[in-house]
Amino acid sequence: MKAGKDFLQKILRGDRSAIARAISIIEDERPESIEILRAIYPHTGRAYRVGITGPPGAGKSTIVNKLAHHFRLQHYRVGIIAVDPTSPFTGGALLGDRIRMTDVELDSGVFFRSMASRGSLGGLSKKTGEAADILDAAGNDLVILETVGVGQSELDVAKAADTTIVVLVPESGDSIQAMKAGLMEIADFIVLNKCDRPGADQAVASIEMVLRLKPMVDTWNPEVVRSIANDTRGIDEIASMIQKHRQFLERTQLLEKKRETRILDRTRELVNEKLQGVFWNEERNAALAAKAVALLSLQTTPYDAAEELYSTFRVVEKS
Amino acid sequence: MKAGKDFLQKILRGDRSAIARAISIIEDERPESIEILRAIYPHTGRAYRVGITGPPGAGKSTIVNKLAHHFRLQHYRVGIIAVDPTSPFTGGALLGDRIRMTDVELDSGVFFRSMASRGSLGGLSKKTGEAADILDAAGNDLVILETVGVGQSELDVAKAADTTIVVLVPESGDSIQAMKAGLMEIADFIVLNKCDRPGADQAVASIEMVLRLKPMVDTWNPEVVRSIANDTRGIDEIASMIQKHRQFLERTQLLEKKRETRILDRTRELVNEKLQGVFWNEERNAALAAKAVALLSLQTTPYDAAEELYSTFRVVEKS
Repeated sequence: MKAGKDFLQKILRGDRSAIARAISIIEDERPESIEILRAIYPHTGRAYRVGITGPPGAGKSTIVNKLAHHFRLQHYRVGIIAVDPTSPFTGGALLGDRIRMTDVELDSGVFFRSMASRGSLGGLSKKTGEAADILDAAGNDLVILETVGVGQSELDVAKAADTTIVVLVPESGDSIQAMKAGLMEIADFIVLNKCDRPGADQAVASIEMVLRLKPMVDTWNPEVVRSIANDTRGIDEIASMIQKHRQFLERTQLLEKKRETRILDRTRELVNEKLQGVFWNEERNAALAAKAVALLSLQTTPYDAAEELYSTFRVVEKS
Repeated sequence: MKAGKDFLQKILRGDRSAIARAISIIEDERPESIEILRAIYPHTGRAYRVGITGPPGAGKSTIVNKLAHHFRLQHYRVGIIAVDPTSPFTGGALLGDRIRMTDVELDSGVFFRSMASRGSLGGLSKKTGEAADILDAAGNDLVILETVGVGQSELDVAKAADTTIVVLVPESGDSIQAMKAGLMEIADFIVLNKCDRPGADQAVASIEMVLRLKPMVDTWNPEVVRSIANDTRGIDEIASMIQKHRQFLERTQLLEKKRETRILDRTRELVNEKLQGVFWNEERNAALAAKAVALLSLQTTPYDAAEELYSTFRVVEKS
């Protein structure tokens, strides 16, 4: 095995540098990632996965920090993946505050890692899920996936998580009403952070109004939890709400259902990648490129060109 | 032809109800949409496509209104597609202000239509482009695609447009810095609307700072245009900047390149849809579902399951 038995054993034992290397391999989409993921898969399924998202500046990092600390006191092993939507301008992380979290990083029971989205919006969901698998197999009890709620990333995190928390602040206000509505759809509960600021009561009221529009799913009622994460206020309540939601998911078998959906979706995606990989060989890419002139000069249509390309592909069903 | 020769002729003649029906067919992904799109494709490629995006409340609708009016005075025929990210909560449009625009709608030279994204983030780009094709074939000189900059929709619009405009307001501030950065990447120029509000100079300065980080592409330098759309101030400048960008794209052959990329991407996507459609028949969907137990109980991995599913598919290259 190219990935190395030693290397895999190290991941499973929770060796920090092996875990970091494995996540880098996934992040860079190196070919050995499949091999690693296949090997560690049988050791997954134990970690509970929490997604945290919200607008920039809502205090997500602080909440994740303090939550990790909270669960450490209960002897949980905690892994954290912070997803940074990178800016194609600079190639760097958008928010660039990943130097934080030193307090939890010093604790050997917490593993922290940031992952950049590198502009490939589609691939982020897959990579986040794969990194969570690594942390799961490495023996973490809790995996926290954190992302700023811009673009597609919050949907990716919601797909990869068992419980999804949306963090807002009083001043989020109606200018980001639409964004909030988008975020609300994925929230299992809402945290209103910095709730000592003016407008908190009003914000809670308006969030609750939006939540009431959401059809209740299997008797779970998303609530608003208030916090002032900087002062470690509300952290216990957030942790309790995570546990409450987890118990709800377990009781209703929805946890298993979520995991099933995740795994089947991933399998389907792997097949689709394979199909496209087989189809789009050098020859067919060239054949597509060669159609550019005819397409631009309206001699043919994308629909006819696609059919013509596809006709070079003969599928024989196996008996 | 099922779609009907009469119907197609009506679209090409710019008949408003035929156009509206065609876009509905595309929106609902009805099977005859392919037939319509294939038939009208040879009549496309004449309209210039402008995308307008930005946060909610930035005044995009007003700008689109006034721009349409501006170009009408120059005897352009204008088609407008406003993309509404729908809320899965309510099924309705998120911003719900589509009753506006009556002033331009009354003018028979302007066609206005809103399209809902219906939660299918992936499909929006395709549908927007297809609706733009209809408006193009129907004889419009200018097609404006408008969307609120949340989620994926702004990327979809940027892909479908020749010139992409991002509208911001002074108070957009740094709380949405990240969102702005995402929007900046797709902007050919920025409009700072409501620039009579406090903080406008500061906002222009900070936007220009971000723009300077953007590597200059083929000598095009995105600039900031100030407007107060409610008072019809800055509209001429926006229209001039669109023309300036268009001339730049034409001079550098980048316009053709953009169109080529768009058409080839669509052709590729059509092939991929076909591949997946052929592969995921009832039998294989059932075979995937049947693997759920083994996957959840860790008896197999998604990687092995995908290979096993794929192995039922035998491809014979045609000579």
